[in-house]
Amino acid sequence: MVYRIHSDDPETVARDIAVEQTVETPLACVPERLLKDGTIGRVENITPVIDTENPSETAGFDATISFRCDITGFTVPQFLNLIFGNISLKNNIRIVGFDFPEAFLRRFPGPSYGIDGIRKSLRVMDRPLACTALKPLGLCVRELASMAGAFARGGIDVIKDDHGLGNQPTHPFEERVARCAEAVASGNAATGGRAMYCPMISGRFDEIERQIRSVLRVGLKGVLIAPMLVGFDTVRYISETYNLAIIAHPSLTGTFFSNKRHGMTPAVMLGTLFRLIGADLSVFPNAGGRFCFTQKECSDLAVALTGPLGPIKSSLPCPAGGMSLERIKELWEAYGNDMALLIGGSLMQHSPDLTASTRIFMEAVKGLRGPARRS
Amino acid sequence: MVYRIHSDDPETVARDIAVEQTVETPLACVPERLLKDGTIGRVENITPVIDTENPSETAGFDATISFRCDITGFTVPQFLNLIFGNISLKNNIRIVGFDFPEAFLRRFPGPSYGIDGIRKSLRVMDRPLACTALKPLGLCVRELASMAGAFARGGIDVIKDDHGLGNQPTHPFEERVARCAEAVASGNAATGGRAMYCPMISGRFDEIERQIRSVLRVGLKGVLIAPMLVGFDTVRYISETYNLAIIAHPSLTGTFFSNKRHGMTPAVMLGTLFRLIGADLSVFPNAGGRFCFTQKECSDLAVALTGPLGPIKSSLPCPAGGMSLERIKELWEAYGNDMALLIGGSLMQHSPDLTASTRIFMEAVKGLRGPARRS
Repeated sequence: MVYRIHSDDPETVARDIAVEQTVETPLACVPERLLKDGTIGRVENITPVIDTENPSETAGFDATISFRCDITGFTVPQFLNLIFGNISLKNNIRIVGFDFPEAFLRRFPGPSYGIDGIRKSLRVMDRPLACTALKPLGLCVRELASMAGAFARGGIDVIKDDHGLGNQPTHPFEERVARCAEAVASGNAATGGRAMYCPMISGRFDEIERQIRSVLRVGLKGVLIAPMLVGFDTVRYISETYNLAIIAHPSLTGTFFSNKRHGMTPAVMLGTLFRLIGADLSVFPNAGGRFCFTQKECSDLAVALTGPLGPIKSSLPCPAGGMSLERIKELWEAYGNDMALLIGGSLMQHSPDLTASTRIFMEAVKGLRGPARRS
Repeated sequence: MVYRIHSDDPETVARDIAVEQTVETPLACVPERLLKDGTIGRVENITPVIDTENPSETAGFDATISFRCDITGFTVPQFLNLIFGNISLKNNIRIVGFDFPEAFLRRFPGPSYGIDGIRKSLRVMDRPLACTALKPLGLCVRELASMAGAFARGGIDVIKDDHGLGNQPTHPFEERVARCAEAVASGNAATGGRAMYCPMISGRFDEIERQIRSVLRVGLKGVLIAPMLVGFDTVRYISETYNLAIIAHPSLTGTFFSNKRHGMTPAVMLGTLFRLIGADLSVFPNAGGRFCFTQKECSDLAVALTGPLGPIKSSLPCPAGGMSLERIKELWEAYGNDMALLIGGSLMQHSPDLTASTRIFMEAVKGLRGPARRS
C-alpha cells in the first residue's frame, strides 16, 4: 500500500498507520512474537513527493507500508478495514497506490468478462462501446420499456437503468426488468443488434439474490450496481457466483476524493478496487462534465482499469456525468478505443426521436477510426 | 434533508441537488407530470448560517430540500443514493440534518434493544456501561478466550471483538466465538455477572448469515458490525431479522467527515443513520483521543443517538479511540449516564492482570453518582 502523508513527521505517521491498522494496541501490550511475525504492518520506505505543477506547495511523502495478506482473511470487508478502516477517521492520509502479491490477487474474482469478453459478447471489437441510460425515475414501466426499445432499434451497445431506478411503486423491479428486457430483445431482433440491458441492483440485503434471479430469468447478461450502496462484497459475490457483466456505479463514493489530502484517489477506489471486486465497466464522472474530477485523475483511473493487475481481467473505463454527442471525439482522444461512452441526458435532449438520436450517436462512434491510443 | 452549501449562489446549488438526486435529466426532457408530482426534490428554504466561533469565515447556507419518501422504495441503498449518491461526487455540500416523516421512520427497524433494552438485559440501570475489546489480532484463540474470561471475572458489562478480528487463520471465526463465549459464560458464572460478548461480523456477503447463526448457537446476545465494511443494509437486515444487540463500528466512514465542507456530519452518519439501521450502541472516536472529532461534533452525535426520532428507540453513545481510566469522570460529565465507556488499550496497559484492571475500571464507573446529565 502507498499512503500519501501530509505531515512534518511522516515517519511517525507511517509507523502509526502500521500499528493502528493491525494490532491497534499500545506496543507494550503486544506479545513479543507478534512484533516479529509481521502482524504489524511494515513501513518499507518513505519518499518525498515532488509536485511538478506546484513546486512551492508541500506535496507530502509517499509511505509504502506492507501488510500480511492473511490479516484480510482474503475477504473484501477485512481488506477494506485493513487498508483504511480506522485511519479513515484520522486526516492527511491518502491511498495513492497498491502493489498486490499475485497470491492475493488470485483470491479475488475480478471481472467475469473483462474488456475482451464484453467485446466478444457484443461483437464490437474495434471501437468504443456506446452506452445510454433509462431515465428519469418516476416514469411508468411502459414508458421506460418504450425508451429501451427505441435505444435498441437505434443500435446502441449497452442500455443501463438510471441508478435511481430501484423497486419503486412507479416502476417495480421485476416488472420493469421483464418489460425492458422484452423491448430490447425485440429492438435487437428488428435490427440484428445485440444491445445489452443492465438493470440496477440495489435491493435490500435479503432481496439481492431474488433480483439477480429475475435478471437471469429474462435472459439478461449484465447488471448495474453501486458498491457503496449495497456493500463492496455484495458485488464480489455477484461477480463470482453468476456469469453476469457488472457495470459499477460510483454513487456515494465521492467523499473519498473530495479532500485531496485524505481518502483515496479515484484510480484506487473506482479503478483498482472496483476492478478487484468484479467491475467489467466502471462508470466515473468525467472531467468537464457536471462533477469535479480532473482529466489527470480520470486518465489515472483509466490506467488502473486497463493496466496489468496480475491474473485479473481488465475493465472498461466509462466516462460519464454530463457527456454529450459533441464531445465524443475528444473523449476518444483521451481514452482510446477501450472505453464505454455513456451519454444519457444529452441523447434525450438531442431530439424526441430516441432511435434517430441513437443512430447519430452510433454513427459518430463507428466513425472513430485512426490512430487512437490502444489502452 | 438539510444540506449546508458553500457557494456564492446557494439557490442554484440547491435546485441542482434537487434535480441531480432525483430525475438527473435535463428538465426539458422530463415529462410535465413529473415536474408537478413531487418526483423532483423541493427546495423548501435556504438560510444563511451564522458561525458564532468564526464570524469572519463564510459559514455557508442551509438548504432544506424535501424528497418524496417512495423514491427510496423504503430501502437503505436507495435512501443513501437519494440523499447523497451523485452529489457525493460534487463538492461543498454537507448533510447537517434530517427531518423524517413518521411514516418513513416506521419502515426502518431502529435498535432492537435501545438504551432501555440493553440496560435491562445487563441489569445496569443507573450508571454508564463499561466496555472493552479483545485484541490484538494475531493472538491465538486460547489467548483471546483467556482475555475474555479475565474481563468477565473483572465484572465488565460488554466485551467486543477488536474490529480487525475476522476469520483469520490465527483466530478462525467459529472457534474464536465459541471459545470466547464459553470463557465469558464461566467468568459470569463465577461472579454472578452478566457480561455480554459481541463478536465482530465482517464475513463475506454469503457468510454473514452463517456467522450470525454461529453467534446465536452459542447463546450470545449481541454483535459488533461496521456498516461501511459490510454494507448499511446488511446491518438493517440483521437488526430486523435476529434479536441481537448491535454495536456499530465507524470503520471506513472517516472520509465523510474529513472535509468540513463536504460529506456528512458525524451526528448524521454515526448518529441518525446508524441508529436508523439498528445500532444499539454507536462507537465513535471521542475528542482528545487518537482521532480528530471535536467535542462539539461528539456531543451532537450523542444527541442524535439519544434524542427523539419518531418511534425509533434510542442508541447508546460509545466514545472510544484512545480513552483511558483517567478520563472516565470527564467523559461522564460530557455524556451523562447514558453512554457506554469503551476502554481498550489503556485497560491492557494498566496492569498485566486484566481482571484486576477491569475491577478498577468497574469501581470507577460504579462510583459515578451525582448530578450527571440524564440524556
